[in-house]
Amino acid sequence: MKLLRVGPPGAERPALLDGNGTLRDLSGVVPDIGPALLAEPDGLDRVRAAADAGLPGLDPAGLRVGPPLSRPGKIVCIGLNYHDHARETGAAVPGEPILFMKAPDTVVGPHDHVLVPRGSEKTDWEVELAVVIGRTARYLETHEEALAHIAGYAVAHDVSERAFQIERGGQWDKGKNCETFNPLGPWLVTADEVPDPQALSLKLWVNGDLKQDGTTAEMIFPVAEIVRYLSRFMTLYPGDVINTGTPAGVALGHPEPKPYLRAGDVVELEIDGLGRQRQELKDA
Amino acid sequence: MKLLRVGPPGAERPALLDGNGTLRDLSGVVPDIGPALLAEPDGLDRVRAAADAGLPGLDPAGLRVGPPLSRPGKIVCIGLNYHDHARETGAAVPGEPILFMKAPDTVVGPHDHVLVPRGSEKTDWEVELAVVIGRTARYLETHEEALAHIAGYAVAHDVSERAFQIERGGQWDKGKNCETFNPLGPWLVTADEVPDPQALSLKLWVNGDLKQDGTTAEMIFPVAEIVRYLSRFMTLYPGDVINTGTPAGVALGHPEPKPYLRAGDVVELEIDGLGRQRQELKDA
Repeated sequence: MKLLRVGPPGAERPALLDGNGTLRDLSGVVPDIGPALLAEPDGLDRVRAAADAGLPGLDPAGLRVGPPLSRPGKIVCIGLNYHDHARETGAAVPGEPILFMKAPDTVVGPHDHVLVPRGSEKTDWEVELAVVIGRTARYLETHEEALAHIAGYAVAHDVSERAFQIERGGQWDKGKNCETFNPLGPWLVTADEVPDPQALSLKLWVNGDLKQDGTTAEMIFPVAEIVRYLSRFMTLYPGDVINTGTPAGVALGHPEPKPYLRAGDVVELEIDGLGRQRQELKDA
Repeated sequence: MKLLRVGPPGAERPALLDGNGTLRDLSGVVPDIGPALLAEPDGLDRVRAAADAGLPGLDPAGLRVGPPLSRPGKIVCIGLNYHDHARETGAAVPGEPILFMKAPDTVVGPHDHVLVPRGSEKTDWEVELAVVIGRTARYLETHEEALAHIAGYAVAHDVSERAFQIERGGQWDKGKNCETFNPLGPWLVTADEVPDPQALSLKLWVNGDLKQDGTTAEMIFPVAEIVRYLSRFMTLYPGDVINTGTPAGVALGHPEPKPYLRAGDVVELEIDGLGRQRQELKDA
């Protein structure tokens, strides 16, 4: 299923995009799509049964698409997780996953504005495969267990301010948590529709120029290993999001002068089967 | 005011400790104490008016004390923020605040068990002054503005696994987000009762031995500067929590063999006017 949330910020209603590309209203079935629904043992089954029985259509004209999850509990990010991105940044291939965090309040819809922070000169893009957790995960042992704890996948834009991240005195989180820095969606695509999360192409364009053109096959730590590994350092809860790293092609990896983002730039992102985002940059 | 939440985990009711030390029931006045209440322009004024008019008593016998806030939106932590702690760890005094994050789901009550993660050999303690944000803070300019955005203060235990934090491949967050790693409370003490947040003594005992005996006067970046500074890298929202760093005396700062925590150890923490915590360590 492709689940989404449509309507004004903070007042989105749950919806589903059916196999024919028709938008369907889920607001008679579930109050919202988020951690509470995913925590219900049969939450997604209930949505599926309602969809099979038939849902009212919804006119998409003029409807904003919000993030496909109401606020996640936490967002865990994996750094330097693509061989080609590690090479472009001159970093060594990590021996175990590098972990940092984004605040849940950084999430915006897939087509909302992204704000260039005041004083920023190094706002950068990163297309990422987001994993959405479906069951509480503690101390998982195997990759099979890990995959069974995933509710679905989405496109995430891990917007990053490189000076804040690297040059301002310690820990990457400082450049990862600016307002609007995590566009998510358009859809939460349930795991059954993504048979192999290591065979997805990811693309990102800036002002129409293709900047990132990668594949999840290049991941250093695959999705199943990331979920297994993280569950040994923290408990993952339904509705938590994991941003699994970005492939090569970010501004930081370009020769000088690096083409960092400015107000007016337009970024578009796409992952196979997970949909497309488009954001215009604005000044904060 | 001293606000608190009492009852079983996930089902706490709001309460107030009055000037005579009597526990008062707030559940007829507000549904909970958390981000939603703090976001109301007159939320705390409403509580104060109800307290002045008289509140029913509540028998504290057998009542668990929960965290004084329902789940915060985010927890931002400042690293190496005490001159004496920077010295004991051999770190240089930072030129600007070091920032890392804890997930909101790490918060537990002040007397709940703290779990030693599986495989952990370096679980460490850190008593900290927690700042609770009361108004949305973006790009603040002055310390006066910053102080006006603070709702109150609490005791926080920033439990840390040093091997996970420092020896496991990048970014401190990996050792800061284990389950139960942020006991908070017992009270949210409103800012009017803390006239000078830079004049508080902080103490921590392990099995009755005083290990940390510091003062917020030793902070490298004072509370007002932390709030001002953070608001320029991220938006702070009502109910967000800032852990402002720990003074000297953590296990990491001891000579070998460092006295890291084990199941059965008891940690007690206290800050002037903000109350006392007591946790027994257990194996996860």
